[in-house]
Amino acid sequence: MSKILQHINSPNDLKTLNQEQLLLLAKELREFIINIVATKEGHLGASLGVIELTIALHYVFNTPKDQLIWDVGHQAYGHKILTGRRDIFETNRQLNGISGFPKRKESEYDAFGVGHSSTSISAALGMAIASRIKGDLNTQHIAVIGDASIASGMAFEGLNHAGVSKANLLVILNDNAIGIDPSVGALKQYLTNVKKGTQKQDNIFEALNFDYSGPIDGHDLPALINELERLKSVKGPKFLHVITTKGKGLKQAEADQVKYHAPGQFDAKSGELIAKTETKPQPLKYQDVFGHTIVELAKTNPNIVGITPAMPTGSSLKYMMEAFPDRAFDVGIAEQHAVTLAAGMATQGLIPYCNIYSTFMQRAYDQVIHDVATQNLPVIFCLDRAGLVGQDGATHHGVFDLAYLRCIPNLIIYAPRNEVELRNMLYTAQLGLNHPIAIRYPRGRGITIDWKQPFSKIEIGKGEQLKEGKEVAVLSIGTISKNVTEALNSIENPETFSHYDMRFVKPLDAALLHSILKKHHTIITVEDGTVSGGFGSAILEFAAKYNYKSNFITKGIKDEFIEHGTTEELQKINGIDSESLKILFKNIKKAD
Amino acid sequence: MSKILQHINSPNDLKTLNQEQLLLLAKELREFIINIVATKEGHLGASLGVIELTIALHYVFNTPKDQLIWDVGHQAYGHKILTGRRDIFETNRQLNGISGFPKRKESEYDAFGVGHSSTSISAALGMAIASRIKGDLNTQHIAVIGDASIASGMAFEGLNHAGVSKANLLVILNDNAIGIDPSVGALKQYLTNVKKGTQKQDNIFEALNFDYSGPIDGHDLPALINELERLKSVKGPKFLHVITTKGKGLKQAEADQVKYHAPGQFDAKSGELIAKTETKPQPLKYQDVFGHTIVELAKTNPNIVGITPAMPTGSSLKYMMEAFPDRAFDVGIAEQHAVTLAAGMATQGLIPYCNIYSTFMQRAYDQVIHDVATQNLPVIFCLDRAGLVGQDGATHHGVFDLAYLRCIPNLIIYAPRNEVELRNMLYTAQLGLNHPIAIRYPRGRGITIDWKQPFSKIEIGKGEQLKEGKEVAVLSIGTISKNVTEALNSIENPETFSHYDMRFVKPLDAALLHSILKKHHTIITVEDGTVSGGFGSAILEFAAKYNYKSNFITKGIKDEFIEHGTTEELQKINGIDSESLKILFKNIKKAD
Repeated sequence: MSKILQHINSPNDLKTLNQEQLLLLAKELREFIINIVATKEGHLGASLGVIELTIALHYVFNTPKDQLIWDVGHQAYGHKILTGRRDIFETNRQLNGISGFPKRKESEYDAFGVGHSSTSISAALGMAIASRIKGDLNTQHIAVIGDASIASGMAFEGLNHAGVSKANLLVILNDNAIGIDPSVGALKQYLTNVKKGTQKQDNIFEALNFDYSGPIDGHDLPALINELERLKSVKGPKFLHVITTKGKGLKQAEADQVKYHAPGQFDAKSGELIAKTETKPQPLKYQDVFGHTIVELAKTNPNIVGITPAMPTGSSLKYMMEAFPDRAFDVGIAEQHAVTLAAGMATQGLIPYCNIYSTFMQRAYDQVIHDVATQNLPVIFCLDRAGLVGQDGATHHGVFDLAYLRCIPNLIIYAPRNEVELRNMLYTAQLGLNHPIAIRYPRGRGITIDWKQPFSKIEIGKGEQLKEGKEVAVLSIGTISKNVTEALNSIENPETFSHYDMRFVKPLDAALLHSILKKHHTIITVEDGTVSGGFGSAILEFAAKYNYKSNFITKGIKDEFIEHGTTEELQKINGIDSESLKILFKNIKKAD
Repeated sequence: MSKILQHINSPNDLKTLNQEQLLLLAKELREFIINIVATKEGHLGASLGVIELTIALHYVFNTPKDQLIWDVGHQAYGHKILTGRRDIFETNRQLNGISGFPKRKESEYDAFGVGHSSTSISAALGMAIASRIKGDLNTQHIAVIGDASIASGMAFEGLNHAGVSKANLLVILNDNAIGIDPSVGALKQYLTNVKKGTQKQDNIFEALNFDYSGPIDGHDLPALINELERLKSVKGPKFLHVITTKGKGLKQAEADQVKYHAPGQFDAKSGELIAKTETKPQPLKYQDVFGHTIVELAKTNPNIVGITPAMPTGSSLKYMMEAFPDRAFDVGIAEQHAVTLAAGMATQGLIPYCNIYSTFMQRAYDQVIHDVATQNLPVIFCLDRAGLVGQDGATHHGVFDLAYLRCIPNLIIYAPRNEVELRNMLYTAQLGLNHPIAIRYPRGRGITIDWKQPFSKIEIGKGEQLKEGKEVAVLSIGTISKNVTEALNSIENPETFSHYDMRFVKPLDAALLHSILKKHHTIITVEDGTVSGGFGSAILEFAAKYNYKSNFITKGIKDEFIEHGTTEELQKINGIDSESLKILFKNIKKAD
């Protein structure tokens, strides 16, 4: 039972505490987070690393009037707990529970919704400029950003503007030398030199016109409070460099920072991970199918290279980085650079597998169009975590990709139905497509135990009939096919329904589509991307072009931002889970 | 008649010249460019500024084996002329002529296609890493990038990776303190200090692990050659800081660098601009309608702010920057930052008009989704140069926007048919929409002399019937409406056709669409965006949802990259010029 934390219902309750009580609060807050995340799961390490900083910020500043933005937001659990959400924190990341990220709708203390990295400086600067325009010179605007996030181009753009803005902005660099994986790049090396004192003090941030202070120990609460108090009265853009340890306070989390970023369930006392006991063998994750397959291919094809923007573990490119350290690259949180780097490599005959989460590919949209597709360079985009991603919620679902990629000329768009198809397309792509390709696949486990089968070439633009029926054709794309199959297996009139895995959103299988449209009176498309502009829309365009007058039902993600929950729950909300599809199929009317 | 230039058919021909001849070549090359651009138009200032650098690079390096990338590419006219394109240079930017930008398909000397800024470092690094992997340690990889472009986030990402890559990469900063408009930001200020010698030499680029040299005079050809020769043997990432003058060698171009960036026709001898003599009053440009209207609105609404990423002149936000310098912001080439800055401002009740060219909005796609739409912040996006942009060609057409924006929840998408509609939507948006909105309009002159009419509120989601007919409904969006009207005015059976300006791609006018679909057997959609996923596709989705069985014809931009030419020529290629539409309408069959 906590002594202090139980009385903290808002940051106001902090202000009355003395130093000893604040230190005790830090201890209690850490324990509180560990205890809940141990069973409820979530992002652990980042929040443990900023406990003292979180307390200091809310102690010194006048939130929510002073505006505090946590970049990315993985580290905001302490912030949430101290700002009125202690008692609902156990609903974190659950359907209808609180979000795993700061969110404006959730609390007035969440000044800006976050999720993707490196947005905090721009947003805080916008707020700071707004205060200036309104003649308010007292409100403070604070962006807390990690060393991995500040190396992303967008953060640099924010710094570059802020430096000449005279805005009342405080950028706090939470430097723990790690994002989800260890930080990379020249700036990281530079920051290491600063910490060691081997860098002269005329530093990058001063060059960009910030009033720089630090580095200071981010776990020294009194020092943090003193420095923040001092900075309150410094006008203009200021920069505080804080050194923290990710996972601070839990031995295992400090020792294995990558694993304890989001460790799943663990023993709150010992810190040991709790292995899930499965009664039968489980399929691999799609990520590992990618990771192991690319190593296999790279062994025989010396032109293959791999690129990830800061997700070597999440994407499983780490396997190639270990096996071929000179041919696999973690470029940091730099999706734009990753794509154009791949384009440059492709001009020289290399075969780049550029692995980017679907939601983060939004960051490199122009580069896909302008640097890859316009030049028709055969870059292989592996769009991981496509579709609904579950608990990370609205900021992270990869549901827009089919719509935003489909308008790009020259690009092939493929979605494997299962691990074997993923593997075969990874194989096929390196044989030479003369086009860029986007291969999109979901987060998490597949459906095939025996995934490692001999490679087989996939014919580009060919769909596949999975089930023959008489009246209604269900056209699916990617792994959502499983739900269609389950639904069709449980209805009373399966003979009514054909099922096709179209496999390619672009180019469409025209011959197959003609035969489908001639034979069936009703066409149902099923996808785990947006209905607006997505796969179903492509089918409608095809049908309109050839003047087919079928009935069409397009199922997919609704035209709204989908919140967090399990993937199954979110599929249900969008009517694309097996049960909803079953009901849909049952209600299809017979042809007149 | 040139003495030297006429004999230069490839860079090999340069290598035999002595210093005196090289200096003469510089003079001749400058004159050649001035003479042709004076009548054929194009980008003048940037190329004049790098004449010496261009000669020095091709003299010292072994192009095309050594790979030379010109960032953006405005400055590559000299490069094109020296690499075999002297005699076709007069076809620059014309249909079937050479491109205004380096382009791989055009020449082996164009190592990477460019157009949008800040891609060169990433692309060159990709090539350099490819050389390393292939065991080729001799090939040189050179990115020439301006001071405006290097301040963009993507360039920073490239530098950050390159600094730890050990790749054989030379980044040349062409520092002329101006992009299209004068450079802005903290980095620009910093570079100014470096030039003045007031900055200590432990500089930003050294901090990022580059071997820095300079600044040197970019018009001192012997000095450039010496320095490049020296750098040839320096291994790893190197950085050469070169100071140049944009427009160098033409007095007016040096004096008014903004106007002479792309001056239109001018007198090659005197340098004076040639005013186009028009026999009757011309409508304003859409840009100026935006620029003047936002000033008008800002006078009465103190919450209005304006943002442009480096296009104050091109977008005409310059008028607001002059009238309200504290409320209008040029943030540099930083589209990502521009959008999230606007989001931050919107959280505080400001009303940001964020003006970004349609093609450059691709750079900020994630920020539109993640920072604006997810939070439903009422940012007003003004998407300038939407649709076909003419001579800038494939890299610059704003044809993807309707497709990539349409899948985004919460976003209103509007395209005005004329200047009055643009003006009225700019007015309506600041009254409060409770949603973000994208207002897309084209490059160049409108169609209305008397554009400045009293403001009138536009109802969101309401289309408009322009012409009533009996059988066929033509649905257009935006200014392409003009072509539809012209076509309908010239056919023999106008009574067959209705014409609707739908105005909103999102939300669609459902009531109007129901009435249209009930009444007409054939629906023709016309847009100047991609057919894949665009406006027409939205209409198909609507019709499918409500089970209408009309005939549909969707006209718009084909599924290929459209090259350069006049907008009229490119419309014809895509079948959306008046004449093509007229033929289409004539060939529509009567209902059975």
